[in-house]
Amino acid sequence: MPMKIIATIAEMQKASADERALGKRIALVPTMGYLHDGHVSLIKKAKDHADIVIASIFVNPTQFGPNEDFERYPRDFTRDHSLLEGAGCDYIFYPGIKEMYAGANRTEIKIDYLTRNFEGTLRPGHFNGVALVVSKLFNATLPHLAIFGQKDYQQTLVIKQMVRDLNFGIELIISATYREADGLAMSSRNVYLSPSERLKANIIFNALEKAKKAILSGERQRKIINATMHSVLRSVPEIRIDYASSALADSLDEPDIFLAGDELVLLLAVYLGRTRLIDNTLVRAPLSSASAEDKFVEEYI
Amino acid sequence: MPMKIIATIAEMQKASADERALGKRIALVPTMGYLHDGHVSLIKKAKDHADIVIASIFVNPTQFGPNEDFERYPRDFTRDHSLLEGAGCDYIFYPGIKEMYAGANRTEIKIDYLTRNFEGTLRPGHFNGVALVVSKLFNATLPHLAIFGQKDYQQTLVIKQMVRDLNFGIELIISATYREADGLAMSSRNVYLSPSERLKANIIFNALEKAKKAILSGERQRKIINATMHSVLRSVPEIRIDYASSALADSLDEPDIFLAGDELVLLLAVYLGRTRLIDNTLVRAPLSSASAEDKFVEEYI
Repeated sequence: MPMKIIATIAEMQKASADERALGKRIALVPTMGYLHDGHVSLIKKAKDHADIVIASIFVNPTQFGPNEDFERYPRDFTRDHSLLEGAGCDYIFYPGIKEMYAGANRTEIKIDYLTRNFEGTLRPGHFNGVALVVSKLFNATLPHLAIFGQKDYQQTLVIKQMVRDLNFGIELIISATYREADGLAMSSRNVYLSPSERLKANIIFNALEKAKKAILSGERQRKIINATMHSVLRSVPEIRIDYASSALADSLDEPDIFLAGDELVLLLAVYLGRTRLIDNTLVRAPLSSASAEDKFVEEYI
Repeated sequence: MPMKIIATIAEMQKASADERALGKRIALVPTMGYLHDGHVSLIKKAKDHADIVIASIFVNPTQFGPNEDFERYPRDFTRDHSLLEGAGCDYIFYPGIKEMYAGANRTEIKIDYLTRNFEGTLRPGHFNGVALVVSKLFNATLPHLAIFGQKDYQQTLVIKQMVRDLNFGIELIISATYREADGLAMSSRNVYLSPSERLKANIIFNALEKAKKAILSGERQRKIINATMHSVLRSVPEIRIDYASSALADSLDEPDIFLAGDELVLLLAVYLGRTRLIDNTLVRAPLSSASAEDKFVEEYI
């Protein structure tokens, strides 16, 4: 079947209902376009889990703050189209802003607790915008499962909570972050980096790796773990740190001391020049020094 | 097919998916149980519009305030079951509170503007609770259409807005209020009334009717319309008025003067003794004195 492009919610709902009526299992991969290999890997993973893959491309204005990069966010539909076709995507859902936000939007979806720190405080309203658009995309595409990238770690927690709380009958798959050869997490925003910034951008991955190693060697004091990341990042003067923190992976709680066996997430957001980049990694605090070599979990569902 | 009772979200979603796979059109009638003839009329209307009718019975704690009647809200599942079976209902979705609110609920849905007056201010959090539970019920039952009674008029506006804003692919039907012979709107809460209160309760309908007649005779000043209702209600000393107001039917705006041709809603909430009752009616301000006899709209979709 040739890939189809659908621009309206009503047509998308009908196409999905028709696929469901044929007994097809549908996967949604929500994107903001300007796709990279990480997105392509999500499409391929979606194909492994479903009969029909819908990729949505929508740069959602309600999740950008007033001084953020909504206007200059990179867009290239022709290239996205060809990447998605090559990856075996079945539908592109590509609505305009007027289609997605027709009339006065008066509904707000707010997820408590999981939004109380990190991106939730630094980008006020961001997760409300994410929750709203993801709800709209779920109801427009009616998938059996949806795949999100782990790179937006806090977002994955927020969406899991919303899916649970609103009884969305949708399975979520969180897919490991795709990285460049030097460890930089793939992101559409990497295009903002100057060549010299790009060379230094792997410091982010190095900071995560160094803190992870410290944890696997037995470090469980949150301040020391965080300081480890800060000190690596400070070796690049063009870096400004929004946060470089450790937390419990499921709750984002930040106790002074983590316990043996705790599943942790290391999260950071930094400006490299004018470009804001985020990254994270998961690691389990070893149960004893003997098990310090336990493999950390890079992917979970 | 004998009527089925389903208590879990997962089984309800599966039953609906199976019905959809058979090409069936599904209607949901959400209720809080303790059914009356008004509910039965909703089930019958649902059967006219769909192949399969699901009635949900769930007294939703999150839409009751701390001093409201959640605990003493009347319940009688055996009677409800028999009424629904008699009306030709196909499924009762009857989840417990732990099924509907498993774990920490951290998601809030807030509808702006349409909740800024009337029930929205007098029952803080009420419409957030309604929006949340209706979303959960929609996702649990996956209907093509849902039927709500006009008696909860502001609620119907809130739900319509939410369905639009979140792209729920669900058709809404708002069904005219069912009334006792003397005009009292049917409500599960009418059981709270003492016999002598019950005799006086038709004053509510009379107040609406008198104001409607005034509008059809050309009255367009909001304060005078509202005063008409107040003066009728004050003839019963046991009545305490929360509000008795007129507004534009689609926005709930309250201009000083309505315009010829405006579609209005008359809304009231009163205590009769300890029982809080609400009611409303729709009426179009006539285009000219010649058209003052225009039929008002009792039902709309």
